[in-house]
Amino acid sequence: MKRYGFTIGLIGSFILSGAAHYIGAPVFGPTAQFLIAAVAIIFVAGFLGKTTESVAHYAGERMGGFLNATFGNAAELIIAFFLVKDGMFDVVKASITGSIIGNMLLVLGLSVLIGGLKYKEQRFNVKLAGHSASLMMLAVIALFIPASFARSFTKMETAQLSVIVSVILIIAYLLWLFFSMVTHKNELSEEAVEHGEPAWSKGTSILFLIIATVMVAFDSEWLVGTLESFSHQYGLSELFVGAFLIAIVGNAAEHSAAIIMARKNKMGAAFEIAIGSSLQISLFVAPVLVLASLFFGKTMDLVFTSFELVAIGVAAFIAKSISQDGTTTWYEGVLLLVVYLILGIAFFLV
Amino acid sequence: MKRYGFTIGLIGSFILSGAAHYIGAPVFGPTAQFLIAAVAIIFVAGFLGKTTESVAHYAGERMGGFLNATFGNAAELIIAFFLVKDGMFDVVKASITGSIIGNMLLVLGLSVLIGGLKYKEQRFNVKLAGHSASLMMLAVIALFIPASFARSFTKMETAQLSVIVSVILIIAYLLWLFFSMVTHKNELSEEAVEHGEPAWSKGTSILFLIIATVMVAFDSEWLVGTLESFSHQYGLSELFVGAFLIAIVGNAAEHSAAIIMARKNKMGAAFEIAIGSSLQISLFVAPVLVLASLFFGKTMDLVFTSFELVAIGVAAFIAKSISQDGTTTWYEGVLLLVVYLILGIAFFLV
Amino acid sequence: MKRYGFTIGLIGSFILSGAAHYIGAPVFGPTAQFLIAAVAIIFVAGFLGKTTESVAHYAGERMGGFLNATFGNAAELIIAFFLVKDGMFDVVKASITGSIIGNMLLVLGLSVLIGGLKYKEQRFNVKLAGHSASLMMLAVIALFIPASFARSFTKMETAQLSVIVSVILIIAYLLWLFFSMVTHKNELSEEAVEHGEPAWSKGTSILFLIIATVMVAFDSEWLVGTLESFSHQYGLSELFVGAFLIAIVGNAAEHSAAIIMARKNKMGAAFEIAIGSSLQISLFVAPVLVLASLFFGKTMDLVFTSFELVAIGVAAFIAKSISQDGTTTWYEGVLLLVVYLILGIAFFLV
Repeated sequence: MKRYGFTIGLIGSFILSGAAHYIGAPVFGPTAQFLIAAVAIIFVAGFLGKTTESVAHYAGERMGGFLNATFGNAAELIIAFFLVKDGMFDVVKASITGSIIGNMLLVLGLSVLIGGLKYKEQRFNVKLAGHSASLMMLAVIALFIPASFARSFTKMETAQLSVIVSVILIIAYLLWLFFSMVTHKNELSEEAVEHGEPAWSKGTSILFLIIATVMVAFDSEWLVGTLESFSHQYGLSELFVGAFLIAIVGNAAEHSAAIIMARKNKMGAAFEIAIGSSLQISLFVAPVLVLASLFFGKTMDLVFTSFELVAIGVAAFIAKSISQDGTTTWYEGVLLLVVYLILGIAFFLV
Repeated sequence: MKRYGFTIGLIGSFILSGAAHYIGAPVFGPTAQFLIAAVAIIFVAGFLGKTTESVAHYAGERMGGFLNATFGNAAELIIAFFLVKDGMFDVVKASITGSIIGNMLLVLGLSVLIGGLKYKEQRFNVKLAGHSASLMMLAVIALFIPASFARSFTKMETAQLSVIVSVILIIAYLLWLFFSMVTHKNELSEEAVEHGEPAWSKGTSILFLIIATVMVAFDSEWLVGTLESFSHQYGLSELFVGAFLIAIVGNAAEHSAAIIMARKNKMGAAFEIAIGSSLQISLFVAPVLVLASLFFGKTMDLVFTSFELVAIGVAAFIAKSISQDGTTTWYEGVLLLVVYLILGIAFFLV
Repeated sequence: MKRYGFTIGLIGSFILSGAAHYIGAPVFGPTAQFLIAAVAIIFVAGFLGKTTESVAHYAGERMGGFLNATFGNAAELIIAFFLVKDGMFDVVKASITGSIIGNMLLVLGLSVLIGGLKYKEQRFNVKLAGHSASLMMLAVIALFIPASFARSFTKMETAQLSVIVSVILIIAYLLWLFFSMVTHKNELSEEAVEHGEPAWSKGTSILFLIIATVMVAFDSEWLVGTLESFSHQYGLSELFVGAFLIAIVGNAAEHSAAIIMARKNKMGAAFEIAIGSSLQISLFVAPVLVLASLFFGKTMDLVFTSFELVAIGVAAFIAKSISQDGTTTWYEGVLLLVVYLILGIAFFLV
């Protein structure tokens, strides 16, 4: 029953979103177009997540973990890819920022708060938290350095630095996967994210993965197409739209998954989803987008605005401070959400 | 005997301070006026602290804790209130800064050093320290964000952001009190701050509380009145006067209380006084002053100067670094004091 | 056998370096001069280290520890001294920066990585790591504050602040030695750096120490003399030469010592060498150079460029984050090296 509802939602929202895109005004105004496209993305991102997991299941534990770790944010990657293609670099960076802080503050904050309302204190593996925090420091540093040096660099030098840093970050991320899945697998994983049995056979999974990817691609292009007129209509800055609206839409899957884990008292898994997703975006998705931009003839650099850097830095520090002791309480969830709220208001007012 | 001395000091300094205010030059020069007013404030702040505690005692444990936590810095709040009324926003912010760093560096540093000279190593509840550090991060972030965004904001938008952030901070602070006094009371309080028996009956306590508040109000106004000519006479900047002189005067009560606890090897209580006071100032006093300024027709924003932000950030980081392991040694007290000294010299030279 | 090789290398490189200095072009081009001088420094720094250790051995445990702790970076100090004499303040500061980040990122990173390839997890005394991290925070703060305030200071005020801060830092460093070698010796030292038997008798050691110091002085002046034409030839900035080339040359001794300790699973000793050296440079060598500059008539201030501050801050944070839990793995070495690499590329491009 539940699955039929999902299938109908998935296909229905896809068709509606396509219709809204091709028919356009006056039948579909900017608001309707944006909302329909957002709903379609939420459905198809969920579908893509499920198919990735299913294919990962058949690929064996190690390869599967790798697939999950690199394509878990496939939806965000594809949305951003279309933004890069259109040269909307500022929106891309805003949505990267938004995805990082959305995962570290909103997803994690809601999980910790909701979990904390049920359990007085929740525990998780400090070792993993420590390593994740160090990696997050690397991510913050990597995004911070190009911006610090950009002022006295030429555009060319900044682009060079961005490309080199991107390559280094991808290598560091691959080594991290090797470390956490091969050499130190047992030390880090105390409680695994529950995956359950795959829903489909191997062949169907692969077929569905391909279909899901294609659908995400279409949906993403349609969503990106609605952005300009939508943000224009409400007088929203591209920064706010990218960093909050698109990021919340793109992270919908992480939200539900992390909160479910928190309510099952598997706070370690909730952390893995939220922080893992932030790491993936900053150490893998962002640099891949920089390299992808090379093929479109105009290099996207890694120079984030000072607002974005403040937001990412602030999110990383508060998340680190809270995860440090290996336990969480409801109030720590409140702290994360409060910081998210303050940042959201500041970005809204910009 | 000791109490009589205090009573005489309290009343005598109050009268003298009033006389200095109304008679003025040539009998009382700027230096004499300032010193007399400062001594009067130290006495009356001590009196206000004692009466608050006594009323808190009769109000029952929970309500009493709440009273202590919100009105423990009543003297600072009242001083700042008069500064806000006079539109001296820069001095207010400087004194907020000074009070935060004074508590985190000077009060804590002296306690840790003096305690550490007596005991080789002193321990305290790491869990409380961890939560306090996270809250302090929130405070730093909350003061940092308006300043980061102010450059590209209009004055109006900055004021809006400051008011909204203030409301959020007050809510976050009230939730913290609910957390630390209701839902997680037992987890956090390992060793309570000793209060002892109240000195007066219930009725007398309330009467004295009212009297103390009125006296603080007068003394504060007189102190504020001396600032301009005093700082002018010695060529001191308002920043230095607000951040160091006023803050040291306002924190006198915390100093003696925290050091007494440290010498009794109750380092947890000393931390609670010093860090708790910093949190109260940044999460409660500062936002309340912003809201209060609305009633005087000119909004005080939360935009601190970069010097102040550096000072607050630096103080929070070194205090966090030192409290992290749940133990202190005399050298960590030295570190805190050294940072305070360096900041003091830098502010003096500005 | 090994010792003969070292002696020949030491004397040979010294003579060659002198020849290169006095004969100069066209026999010795800028590259040859620089390389010869660098090799000579590496040999003589090793010699100086050995003689210091030997003299320290005869001086008794406490005095010896003090000698090691203050003159362990004698080579860097002497090189910098000649740079200060020539008024090359920017190169001095760049080499201080480079030495700090070189120790915290390159030396420590290589040790952690190489040790981690042999042992799955390496442990060390968390207490020492915690104190070192707090001290490093102080160092970062002390270098940060003059730069933050410099913009609104006159040159005179900045120089004043720098001198005062320098004196405070030296006192803080001496108190640290007193703390770690006298009052809390046993708490901090879990595993000592192995020194072994001294190679020479007491008299010979002192004689050799004097000879080594004189040789370092000559070699340093010759190395400094090659800098301008060498960096000019390859279009390298003084910042890059100072922060990377000179620093790597000057830290050669620490590199080999720390890695040897790491391979013996004495990670605590490796940390002590790397972090201890960083602390020595920032809390002792840098302020001593400021005071030394007073004698040459032109005060060197402690105002570092924002690039340098970013580099030092970033290095301190990632090193702190990694050392926090008292264990290291190979991946944490990778993280440190990645940050070093990114910084190196950024400085190279400046």
